Amino acid sequence: MEKRQLIDPWGETAIEDYEKLFADFGIRPLKPLIPLIPSPPSFIRRGVIFGHRDLELILSAIKEKKDFAVMSGIKPTGDFHLGALLTAREIVYFQKLGGFGVYCIADIEAYEDNDIPYEESERIAVDNVADVLALGFDPKRGYIYRQSKETRVKDLAFLFGRGVTLATITAIYGERHMGLYMSALVQAGDIMLPQLPDFGGPKPTLVPVGVDQDPHIRFTRDLAQKFHAKYGFYTPSATYHRIVKGLDGSPKMSKRNPMGYFTLAEDLESIKAKLIQAFTGGRATVKEQRELGGEPERCPIYDLNMFYFMEDDDKVVELYINCKNGNLLCGDCKLRTAKVVLGFVKDHQRKRVQNLDKAREILGVN
Amino acid sequence: MEKRQLIDPWGETAIEDYEKLFADFGIRPLKPLIPLIPSPPSFIRRGVIFGHRDLELILSAIKEKKDFAVMSGIKPTGDFHLGALLTAREIVYFQKLGGFGVYCIADIEAYEDNDIPYEESERIAVDNVADVLALGFDPKRGYIYRQSKETRVKDLAFLFGRGVTLATITAIYGERHMGLYMSALVQAGDIMLPQLPDFGGPKPTLVPVGVDQDPHIRFTRDLAQKFHAKYGFYTPSATYHRIVKGLDGSPKMSKRNPMGYFTLAEDLESIKAKLIQAFTGGRATVKEQRELGGEPERCPIYDLNMFYFMEDDDKVVELYINCKNGNLLCGDCKLRTAKVVLGFVKDHQRKRVQNLDKAREILGVN
Repeated sequence: MEKRQLIDPWGETAIEDYEKLFADFGIRPLKPLIPLIPSPPSFIRRGVIFGHRDLELILSAIKEKKDFAVMSGIKPTGDFHLGALLTAREIVYFQKLGGFGVYCIADIEAYEDNDIPYEESERIAVDNVADVLALGFDPKRGYIYRQSKETRVKDLAFLFGRGVTLATITAIYGERHMGLYMSALVQAGDIMLPQLPDFGGPKPTLVPVGVDQDPHIRFTRDLAQKFHAKYGFYTPSATYHRIVKGLDGSPKMSKRNPMGYFTLAEDLESIKAKLIQAFTGGRATVKEQRELGGEPERCPIYDLNMFYFMEDDDKVVELYINCKNGNLLCGDCKLRTAKVVLGFVKDHQRKRVQNLDKAREILGVN
Repeated sequence: MEKRQLIDPWGETAIEDYEKLFADFGIRPLKPLIPLIPSPPSFIRRGVIFGHRDLELILSAIKEKKDFAVMSGIKPTGDFHLGALLTAREIVYFQKLGGFGVYCIADIEAYEDNDIPYEESERIAVDNVADVLALGFDPKRGYIYRQSKETRVKDLAFLFGRGVTLATITAIYGERHMGLYMSALVQAGDIMLPQLPDFGGPKPTLVPVGVDQDPHIRFTRDLAQKFHAKYGFYTPSATYHRIVKGLDGSPKMSKRNPMGYFTLAEDLESIKAKLIQAFTGGRATVKEQRELGGEPERCPIYDLNMFYFMEDDDKVVELYINCKNGNLLCGDCKLRTAKVVLGFVKDHQRKRVQNLDKAREILGVN
């Protein structure tokens, strides 16, 4: 076990936790497809994206230079977080490979699920769109919109409503109010939007998501199949990325604990403080760590490097080995990580400000 | 009992069936308000409209010359039927008293509930709108629209979604697919549309319906109250009309049996044949009828006269008495009724054709 981990800096052991997804839900491992993916970015090379459904459809379209789309979005409840960073990078990557990029500001969901009124989410949306532009999204080869302003996704929700029984919706979402169910149907509409005639009609469409979002994907795939005969929809494809651990050591980075996450809009000193205070895969004492080595598999600081911020694979391997063999202590590692993270965030924040006007223009906001 | 019916040509005994609605659901009898209603039309004088909720709000607005609205609509699944005729007459009446008239073509409901695609309901909608114009709806003092094209009612549906639990929606509509529930929310949006800022903001709004539609009314009233604090909505008022019997003697005129109903677009000979073959309140033999008299209370032919087609109250009383005392036999009565009905329908059909272009213009259909 130790040995295997030593030669597995991409954390394949962690993926073992996901193996039941392959068996139980039909998500398929990405690994066999990696050789077919043109210049795979780090999040593909390192298994951060570990699974998929029907990605072959997208890879064929790329190879044959046929139309395809890549779509994702963000719920405008706050600043851009790391999960959104990953999906944004995936969209930008597939957009560069020829995909039509669609980015949705899920403000209906923010209202239904979080009771955030549109006036408030509008302000957040401007920031979110500036973020995605700063990350390289090309609006000339894509489309960015708010659900509340996009009649076509709302109309798809009404279209799909007839295809969803009470049993189906409660099985996926539990017993919630009607608005939550409606926002699930709107989300299915978001995913199918790129296949409408206004966007050139049916085409393979890739939806990059965190693996916890798979129920939405299955829900939408079922609807695409139900309405295929009439509308010719392709069943949407998906990729699944691993869930990044919270800085507080929780299994999923979330907003519940402010010390457990940071956003791309956050004050640099605040981010640094959180990184320095983060939970790690280190041992109880320096002596112990020198002897036993650290445990990068359980370390959110390692995850940050491996998932997001360390470009060079060799350097990640080096970090992994130095942690495992006890050469690198957590204090040092945190400082090095903070330097890389803050460098990225600082640069990103500069670009984000440059994109605010463009974001307002895209959203039609003054 | 016989005696009471003899002096009650407006069928108050039939209203007794509705008395539990007063007790159980809080619908209130219209009768005490009739003296306050300016030049009450036959359907009010005769108790065809027998109940209401908060009609006082509307009567005050009329008296004080304040803004109010009157709204109803039709599901575009076929030609204009008699229930639609009654609500159209109510709208026209209250529009003449100063109300802003709103008429909704419920094409989302036609899709969700009856699987009629918009392309098909569009064609039907043109006819329906021509009908309502022919009946005197004044588009200069009102608004006619299709749900599928009216973003504001769809957005109200999304707004209201947060206020409706699964328990509420299943209690009213049973276990149905999501689309049916969504169309119920859209219908709540239809009713609240006249209170949006685009229409001058919150105002008393009257919804004339058949008494079987009361669950929708209560559902919408609850939502108006839930969202009152934020939007200032008035709780909508309603009037309830009695349910017209089927020509086949069934308790409710419906499309299930083609011989049981007719539409305003129907061929005159076909209507005549249905009237001649209709079930009546007559006796088994002429002798019996001469002796016992007919039973207008159970007679759909009497209903047609009393509800819709006989303008003069004295003539209805005369008809009632002549039936009850056995002077008038069903054959004669049917012929007389057919003459009145066909006269009206013929005239209406002429007016409807004249209004087709206007209807197309209003709906934006070529």
